[in-house]
Amino acid sequence: KHRPQLTAADYVEGLRKGDTTILGQAVTLVESLLPEKQAVAQEVIEKCLPYAGKSRRIGITGVPGAGKSTSIDVFGTYLLDRNPADKLAVLAIDPSSERSKGSILGDKTRMEKLSIHPRAFIRPSPSAGSLGGVARKTRETIVLCEAAGYNHIFVETVGVGQSETAVHSMVDFFLLIQIAGAGDELQGIKRGIMEMADAIAINKADGDNVDRAKIQAAEFQNALHLYPLPPSGVEPKVTTYSGYYNLNIDTLWHIIDDYFQAVDRNGYFQERRRQQEKYWMYETINEQLKSNFYNDPEIDDLLRIKQRMVLDNKQSSFVAAGDILKFYFDKLKKTD
Amino acid sequence: KHRPQLTAADYVEGLRKGDTTILGQAVTLVESLLPEKQAVAQEVIEKCLPYAGKSRRIGITGVPGAGKSTSIDVFGTYLLDRNPADKLAVLAIDPSSERSKGSILGDKTRMEKLSIHPRAFIRPSPSAGSLGGVARKTRETIVLCEAAGYNHIFVETVGVGQSETAVHSMVDFFLLIQIAGAGDELQGIKRGIMEMADAIAINKADGDNVDRAKIQAAEFQNALHLYPLPPSGVEPKVTTYSGYYNLNIDTLWHIIDDYFQAVDRNGYFQERRRQQEKYWMYETINEQLKSNFYNDPEIDDLLRIKQRMVLDNKQSSFVAAGDILKFYFDKLKKTD
Repeated sequence: KHRPQLTAADYVEGLRKGDTTILGQAVTLVESLLPEKQAVAQEVIEKCLPYAGKSRRIGITGVPGAGKSTSIDVFGTYLLDRNPADKLAVLAIDPSSERSKGSILGDKTRMEKLSIHPRAFIRPSPSAGSLGGVARKTRETIVLCEAAGYNHIFVETVGVGQSETAVHSMVDFFLLIQIAGAGDELQGIKRGIMEMADAIAINKADGDNVDRAKIQAAEFQNALHLYPLPPSGVEPKVTTYSGYYNLNIDTLWHIIDDYFQAVDRNGYFQERRRQQEKYWMYETINEQLKSNFYNDPEIDDLLRIKQRMVLDNKQSSFVAAGDILKFYFDKLKKTD
Repeated sequence: KHRPQLTAADYVEGLRKGDTTILGQAVTLVESLLPEKQAVAQEVIEKCLPYAGKSRRIGITGVPGAGKSTSIDVFGTYLLDRNPADKLAVLAIDPSSERSKGSILGDKTRMEKLSIHPRAFIRPSPSAGSLGGVARKTRETIVLCEAAGYNHIFVETVGVGQSETAVHSMVDFFLLIQIAGAGDELQGIKRGIMEMADAIAINKADGDNVDRAKIQAAEFQNALHLYPLPPSGVEPKVTTYSGYYNLNIDTLWHIIDDYFQAVDRNGYFQERRRQQEKYWMYETINEQLKSNFYNDPEIDDLLRIKQRMVLDNKQSSFVAAGDILKFYFDKLKKTD
């Protein structure tokens, strides 16, 4: 017995009511690679756009072991407790899930409180496709969540590669989580990531670690002074906290809240969103140019044949690519 | 007074004679973004393919300051001195040149001996376009150089980002240059880059540094033991040397020569080249899908208009991208 197929209008209606089952299904639709599903997905997104944008989008990064999931669980619960009207969606971008087909991020079992919280929606990283494709799907999921009334969006990522740039391009605020007592080399801080951070929060500042964490915080604050003021006009703050022992979460909240108030006043909030929209216009174009090509079954067959010829040294990569492209563009001309 | 336009056949004839002026012009042609130049460039490359492939392609990476240029100068001269029939081309991929429009790599002034050597050809990094585009042009330049009889190709890159992956995808051997006495954190070694290296050469092993460099070499060798044997079947070697004082260059040469003999025997040389050809088939397709779109003047005009609308909040990125793509595919259908 199959579920009846929902139309785009059904999805939007369900979303607008805050139906989390429908929201989950809509995200699955967005993540689907099937062209017919993608067509409905794009229609849903377009219909959701007028209701989107009204959230605080917060990116959270840090190396594995930094305690991201625990921190998100505690911080998200704190945030939802402050205001009974607030809703929180936790999304994730994990480029490693591309290979392993399973993401360690956004794992519900690691967010004990949020996973059973009626006003929280947790969704692990989409696993198929390139980082660009995965990021785009997360970006589209943000639109769905916002249309469903989620006014806080957390986007989690592992702090080890290009995924930070992708997350940075879709959030208003970027939080870098560090671990108290770990040396820089263990934390994989790259200059580029430090420069992206709107705040650095040093986790595991509990027990014996408290003093060390405070010294570290001072060092980070000094290091940040060396950079010019970020385009937000707000100097990045450094704080210590403990996700596990639930310490100093309110300070972290105030740093983030102050930031949003400041960028709201100075106009940077809107400016950043505009620049992100521009970025996503180009990203969307590039993704679609590729998917229009690779999702064509005839192209898929030809790719298989040509790849075999290239591997067997019967044709060069350039000539093979040229032949496939010629077939593709010829075919596009013939379509009516 | 303009130079007469060369035909593809003229280029190939000049290249095959080893005319370096023609080779330089052919590389400029390949690097051109103009569609009419690109058409000739592709014809030249196709005609060169039967003469290409017969070289040792060596990738060289290391952070700025590792002494790459000096090392290439000394090592390249050593190599050319060994065999008067050998020819060496030094190419570069510098992703930072995209922004600064000027590359510090492949700088002739930093390669004193090679820059005036009659059997050396030095070419800095192409500067226009995405990393993928830049890498593809370098890959095509390899074909031109090989057709012109260059049987050693060095491809230099800065060891800080994705460019290593691009270089790794076009060379037979990947050399990581480290500096004696510098800590790991200064050298920006990422796990992925260590895993790519077929050899690690510790530079500046001279004077006071010799002992420290040897300890470091032992540490690297230990670290490399932790990884499984690479697909080449050849265990990566670690050596110390001094580019500036011209010390231990012969050891480095033997490591590389031994590698090429081993992979020639066990068949990995051909296997790796085949896999690279497959990789470049897909890279070429992706680049061409984009360039066919972005090089269209009508698309360019439309992009400008839509970008303005997106920045002015008059249209969402998704809708704008959709409109442009629709225009593009409609236009393709109409072309005869």
